[in-house]
Amino acid sequence: MLAPLAIDRIVRVALEEDAPWGDITGEALIPENATATADLVAREDGVFSGAAPFAAAFRITDPAIDVDLSAAEGARFAAGDRLARVSGSARAVLCAERVALNFAQRMSGVATLTSRYVDAVSGTHARIVDTRKTTPGLRALERQAVRAGGGHNHRFSLSDAVMAKDNHLAVVAGRSITQALREARERVPHTTHIEVEVDRIDQIEPVLAADIDTIMLDNFSLDDLREGVRRVAGRAVVEASGGVSLDTVAGIAATGVDVISVGALTHSARSIDLGLDIAWG
Amino acid sequence: MLAPLAIDRIVRVALEEDAPWGDITGEALIPENATATADLVAREDGVFSGAAPFAAAFRITDPAIDVDLSAAEGARFAAGDRLARVSGSARAVLCAERVALNFAQRMSGVATLTSRYVDAVSGTHARIVDTRKTTPGLRALERQAVRAGGGHNHRFSLSDAVMAKDNHLAVVAGRSITQALREARERVPHTTHIEVEVDRIDQIEPVLAADIDTIMLDNFSLDDLREGVRRVAGRAVVEASGGVSLDTVAGIAATGVDVISVGALTHSARSIDLGLDIAWG
Amino acid sequence: MLAPLAIDRIVRVALEEDAPWGDITGEALIPENATATADLVAREDGVFSGAAPFAAAFRITDPAIDVDLSAAEGARFAAGDRLARVSGSARAVLCAERVALNFAQRMSGVATLTSRYVDAVSGTHARIVDTRKTTPGLRALERQAVRAGGGHNHRFSLSDAVMAKDNHLAVVAGRSITQALREARERVPHTTHIEVEVDRIDQIEPVLAADIDTIMLDNFSLDDLREGVRRVAGRAVVEASGGVSLDTVAGIAATGVDVISVGALTHSARSIDLGLDIAWG
Amino acid sequence: MLAPLAIDRIVRVALEEDAPWGDITGEALIPENATATADLVAREDGVFSGAAPFAAAFRITDPAIDVDLSAAEGARFAAGDRLARVSGSARAVLCAERVALNFAQRMSGVATLTSRYVDAVSGTHARIVDTRKTTPGLRALERQAVRAGGGHNHRFSLSDAVMAKDNHLAVVAGRSITQALREARERVPHTTHIEVEVDRIDQIEPVLAADIDTIMLDNFSLDDLREGVRRVAGRAVVEASGGVSLDTVAGIAATGVDVISVGALTHSARSIDLGLDIAWG
Amino acid sequence: MLAPLAIDRIVRVALEEDAPWGDITGEALIPENATATADLVAREDGVFSGAAPFAAAFRITDPAIDVDLSAAEGARFAAGDRLARVSGSARAVLCAERVALNFAQRMSGVATLTSRYVDAVSGTHARIVDTRKTTPGLRALERQAVRAGGGHNHRFSLSDAVMAKDNHLAVVAGRSITQALREARERVPHTTHIEVEVDRIDQIEPVLAADIDTIMLDNFSLDDLREGVRRVAGRAVVEASGGVSLDTVAGIAATGVDVISVGALTHSARSIDLGLDIAWG
Amino acid sequence: MLAPLAIDRIVRVALEEDAPWGDITGEALIPENATATADLVAREDGVFSGAAPFAAAFRITDPAIDVDLSAAEGARFAAGDRLARVSGSARAVLCAERVALNFAQRMSGVATLTSRYVDAVSGTHARIVDTRKTTPGLRALERQAVRAGGGHNHRFSLSDAVMAKDNHLAVVAGRSITQALREARERVPHTTHIEVEVDRIDQIEPVLAADIDTIMLDNFSLDDLREGVRRVAGRAVVEASGGVSLDTVAGIAATGVDVISVGALTHSARSIDLGLDIAWG
Repeated sequence: MLAPLAIDRIVRVALEEDAPWGDITGEALIPENATATADLVAREDGVFSGAAPFAAAFRITDPAIDVDLSAAEGARFAAGDRLARVSGSARAVLCAERVALNFAQRMSGVATLTSRYVDAVSGTHARIVDTRKTTPGLRALERQAVRAGGGHNHRFSLSDAVMAKDNHLAVVAGRSITQALREARERVPHTTHIEVEVDRIDQIEPVLAADIDTIMLDNFSLDDLREGVRRVAGRAVVEASGGVSLDTVAGIAATGVDVISVGALTHSARSIDLGLDIAWG
Repeated sequence: MLAPLAIDRIVRVALEEDAPWGDITGEALIPENATATADLVAREDGVFSGAAPFAAAFRITDPAIDVDLSAAEGARFAAGDRLARVSGSARAVLCAERVALNFAQRMSGVATLTSRYVDAVSGTHARIVDTRKTTPGLRALERQAVRAGGGHNHRFSLSDAVMAKDNHLAVVAGRSITQALREARERVPHTTHIEVEVDRIDQIEPVLAADIDTIMLDNFSLDDLREGVRRVAGRAVVEASGGVSLDTVAGIAATGVDVISVGALTHSARSIDLGLDIAWG
Repeated sequence: MLAPLAIDRIVRVALEEDAPWGDITGEALIPENATATADLVAREDGVFSGAAPFAAAFRITDPAIDVDLSAAEGARFAAGDRLARVSGSARAVLCAERVALNFAQRMSGVATLTSRYVDAVSGTHARIVDTRKTTPGLRALERQAVRAGGGHNHRFSLSDAVMAKDNHLAVVAGRSITQALREARERVPHTTHIEVEVDRIDQIEPVLAADIDTIMLDNFSLDDLREGVRRVAGRAVVEASGGVSLDTVAGIAATGVDVISVGALTHSARSIDLGLDIAWG
Repeated sequence: MLAPLAIDRIVRVALEEDAPWGDITGEALIPENATATADLVAREDGVFSGAAPFAAAFRITDPAIDVDLSAAEGARFAAGDRLARVSGSARAVLCAERVALNFAQRMSGVATLTSRYVDAVSGTHARIVDTRKTTPGLRALERQAVRAGGGHNHRFSLSDAVMAKDNHLAVVAGRSITQALREARERVPHTTHIEVEVDRIDQIEPVLAADIDTIMLDNFSLDDLREGVRRVAGRAVVEASGGVSLDTVAGIAATGVDVISVGALTHSARSIDLGLDIAWG
Repeated sequence: MLAPLAIDRIVRVALEEDAPWGDITGEALIPENATATADLVAREDGVFSGAAPFAAAFRITDPAIDVDLSAAEGARFAAGDRLARVSGSARAVLCAERVALNFAQRMSGVATLTSRYVDAVSGTHARIVDTRKTTPGLRALERQAVRAGGGHNHRFSLSDAVMAKDNHLAVVAGRSITQALREARERVPHTTHIEVEVDRIDQIEPVLAADIDTIMLDNFSLDDLREGVRRVAGRAVVEASGGVSLDTVAGIAATGVDVISVGALTHSARSIDLGLDIAWG
Repeated sequence: MLAPLAIDRIVRVALEEDAPWGDITGEALIPENATATADLVAREDGVFSGAAPFAAAFRITDPAIDVDLSAAEGARFAAGDRLARVSGSARAVLCAERVALNFAQRMSGVATLTSRYVDAVSGTHARIVDTRKTTPGLRALERQAVRAGGGHNHRFSLSDAVMAKDNHLAVVAGRSITQALREARERVPHTTHIEVEVDRIDQIEPVLAADIDTIMLDNFSLDDLREGVRRVAGRAVVEASGGVSLDTVAGIAATGVDVISVGALTHSARSIDLGLDIAWG
């Protein structure tokens, strides 16, 4: 579920961006009392996401608009399927149309791409997760889209989990990595998950010695991933990262890792083609 | 040039999204007085965009950070090129890193894709333009990226140009299209451009009779585009839209149209891989 | 039509300004459950504008207040006419009264002054337009008021049309004005209108040679305006500016110009006297 | 003194309103590194106000712009006087010019009109004060302008003084006015001033019996004002209101009242003509 | 009464702080269509305050939630009393619970502590008032709580009354205090209350000579307070300040002062224990 | 470390609340060019917190003010110690004084109270942690104060850890608690900590069977806490909650629990008395 206050805030910004002082075309050409019914129709196959901001775009523009969603968040659809029906003031429907579509197309794009990764690892126990490589300002929406596609989320932000990367460990001068991580554990809340990225197999033991929660094996070969999983032996969650594509993900999942993080889910998804078919009256 | 106030506002939202109450990893592992120098390095070829928000992300996080850009907005780069160097507090550099990269990678992705379309039509007089299919909240940045890639912008929003589509003209009941458009001209500012979308060649004359500024030929075959250009005969700007891809765009440009609008520039660009190589001290 | 989100934002700022922590007079003197009916009555003749923010001020203060508008945006009224009736909680009505009136009085002032200019040029084809000399923060409302008075709007902001003035052309060093304007045309969106201000008749040809959209004849004598219109000969919209007053505007319109821009519409309109006559119960 | 945070907030809104995504004219025509010096010059006589937002408009647009004020807030100036000099990036100067002028022209308009009222009552002890009939969102600035013109301010908002008008007293059913006002005194902070409006001389005694701070004689004839002052006899501040114009204000002041409130100061001031004379380099 | 716009703004900030991207516990464990009824129950005796933000927290989270208040703002309650009942979506009720309670517990804490001070001075004519030592951002709410507890408010902010302290008077170099205060009176609005703090009895006369409104006797002994009241002799409101506790306040009130300001009301109140007892279905 | 953007935002709200349109006392009584030096001095013993907002209040009011902190965040101080020195414009120092003190006094109050709890459990391995019973809008600051006092933080918000309480488990109809928690684990990010509250010892096993991270023993007797710790046997973090006071906390810590959460740290801390001693010139 998306936080309603956050959706409201984000959608308002988008509506003001797209019509800062109204839709001059609608005002010039559409009678003030004209009404319209518009169907959200898929132009290609995919997984639906963005129901909440899609509806909010219309309702914030005109609370009298009726939005009837026929596809649930996360539903698979085929080209030609009707996903929602919107009816109300023709001017208002056209004024909100582009913003509503921009949200639904992008989020459905993320959900659809995610579902392809999830499908590719089916039969393994690996979960596909997102990263912080999201669109600035839209992270909450894109994480929702990842979930709609069957994926899982990683940490939300720099504030809610420790994630020690090579850059962090490089400055732990004078202390062992194990010691540095133990001290970190002492400083952060007991509810804070600690994940550590390693680049080589021989880094696994000193990191696990600090009793951390997740170990990320970054850019490991398949053989090394298998060996990493064997060495960790259940003492931490194992996350694979780097070089993940639709071609490689099944092989990575087969190594036994628990989590595969895929930046492409959010940084390189293309929009799904959805259209609004409008009828008058 | 991007409006500095808008960049400042957008980057602040992104920074608060990514570190609402600080970077707990940096605070736990990096000494408060450690410094770092970080190079923005291209991992693949492309066209650079996003210099302004990239720099702003660091400077807003810590005004003492020094950002030195070696690539100009719109510059072509090759894998391995250094695009910028950032130096200052290690904690602050790492805190802003992801947000800065998210802006630069996405905007460079849009610029790079745009440049491929622009290259494809070189030798014709057609300009490649964007659409309103932009990321909610980031339109100003994505339009800048399109310009960085050699493209041009279309109208910014519903408020600054009339764009009459089939949905608008369908409700002009009782009036001829020519008459409806003339009345629209009477209502809007004299500085407002009027563009009209047509689906068939026989719609061209009644639309031009209203003395509009741009006619958009939507989803026309190449033959029909050529015929359309011939019939318009310079009386309006001719824009082609629909079915535009890197495979088809050169053929479309060769028909003699003035403008080709490409939604994919912003709705389906993938991020360009840029990394921040960090050295300590 | 005014963008509802913008009105909502502007009216909230005004209400918080006028009652940051409530109306202490109403709370001290008016029973909590008292109700009131208030008539918006004209104290002098004029043209009505501001219906939307007038109603919003009451509805945002208390959604249960009923606002019934009897005068339409743009309607002419005489002293004594009732323009609207408001009924609901007495405390809420009095709390919103001043803000609602401030919007309606100012916007009706702009509409009324505009209508006098429009009346003065009736019988000519010149349109009266506003300028960017608007009240900071209230431009959208004042442009609406200009339209309510029968006028037209000029560009909204620095971002949506090119307007080259003497200061701009003075720095076109090394290039001819014609060349500079042609290059500008190449840079801006094809939907962007280009207007150029000239101070002397001999500047008209080089400017028109750049195929610009509107030429502004600034501070021209009536004879020069007539000569300017003759020379432009329909190749661009002709705008007259400078020295426009209710005394001079008819003469200017008679020269055949298309557009007359009048800063006074917004920078020097006085408020129209409207009152709220309140009855209890 | 104006609160710097409030000025900053108001000026940012105005700058974003006037250039939401930059100044496309400057970007198309002015070289990025061109510099300019601009003199703020009076085109007519007046009293200067708006120094703070005038300077802020430039400094927020570009912190490197230098703003040198030669006229102090409240200074009288003659046509032709230079009031300030601004120098820096030509693009930035032109981008902020209109917003800076809009603030200075309007505030100087209020200050100038106020000074005419103040001059008209010189030699009496009456102070000229403003009302809540201010421009929505700009009350703090307009109150500053009134002070710059030699006037004084009335209460800022509904939250900081009690002002009981006929509408309030009409609902004091079952209680005497005296009693109602005494109860109000009991409820509000001891620092809260209580002012009461009366329409007839016979209302003065019951109101004064409640030991209120200011009595407003609304729409009284000059004779009645004199009689009112006599009857109040120093037991409260006496404010005259209604029917105040430059023609009548001296006569009203001569009746001995302490305060004369003039809505016109802010609701009907016209802008003072100030210009920015720009030189390049 | 609290200004609804201010409450709305403050409560939204609190809700976004406590659930920036939703309640992950509720989403993981509570069925989407589950409903709940929750009783706000007192765990100890006290005075109720915070009804408005308590209700707003639920209604903003989900407008369909029903909030039924059984205790009025300012009502005394005993441990075990039910103060309100909330019913609606179980997820939404639990999501808003903590924020709603945080407001009600803190405000009831202030109201309860205030009521103890008010009770302690009953039988005297002294009023207990708050100070500016409030929680940053919550002043309007804490002032409301003071009123709910039977106390009164002091000035709201630095902007709405003059309060001259030793630090101010120390810099009145070259002018007598009397003269400096008279000049201040000339500068501020006639509706502005002037209060002056004195530390010694011999400062009373020069201050009163300036015809100020309230004199604050700061850190006076009981004897000196009595002597101060005698010397002021009704020429100004007398406020006592400093060293006020529940042990000393009755004695201070008995000296005859009009107002006793107590910083502890807001800076040192502890929360009252209120709980939400939740039943399902 | 506190996020600078969040501090900036919170302090600006507080400054605008306390001086919405300036400090009228300072403007009336203090010469514009007067300077002052002010020492932040402790009036009682305590632990310092709030350095960042204290400094920000002055610097936002006037960037030219110099703030020199002599006490570090978290430092213990005695009555009479100087904690900071502020120097600059006298008007600006006095304008920001109260807001700066309000932050420092409250945060130092939380830090001081926390340090007393921390001291009370010294020699055990239990950590003292805060709760979500924080002041609305100030959670980030109060969490910082808890850390300054030697305590630790619990989860920040509803969005960053699962915390299943009795109300959540009550609705897990048809599923066992173990099963419900396992399903929750499947839904949330792998970085999300899962904590479960139990009321009775016999609930421990079914909860631990779900492999959760922390078990909270709510309102357990000391004997039951000891037995709980024994049964958990290191399989999860053990948190004690309920009935924690300075009198009881040492006994609770002695039972061997890992974490003791104390709502009073933030909901019932009283401000520490800090003063600003001002010298002129």
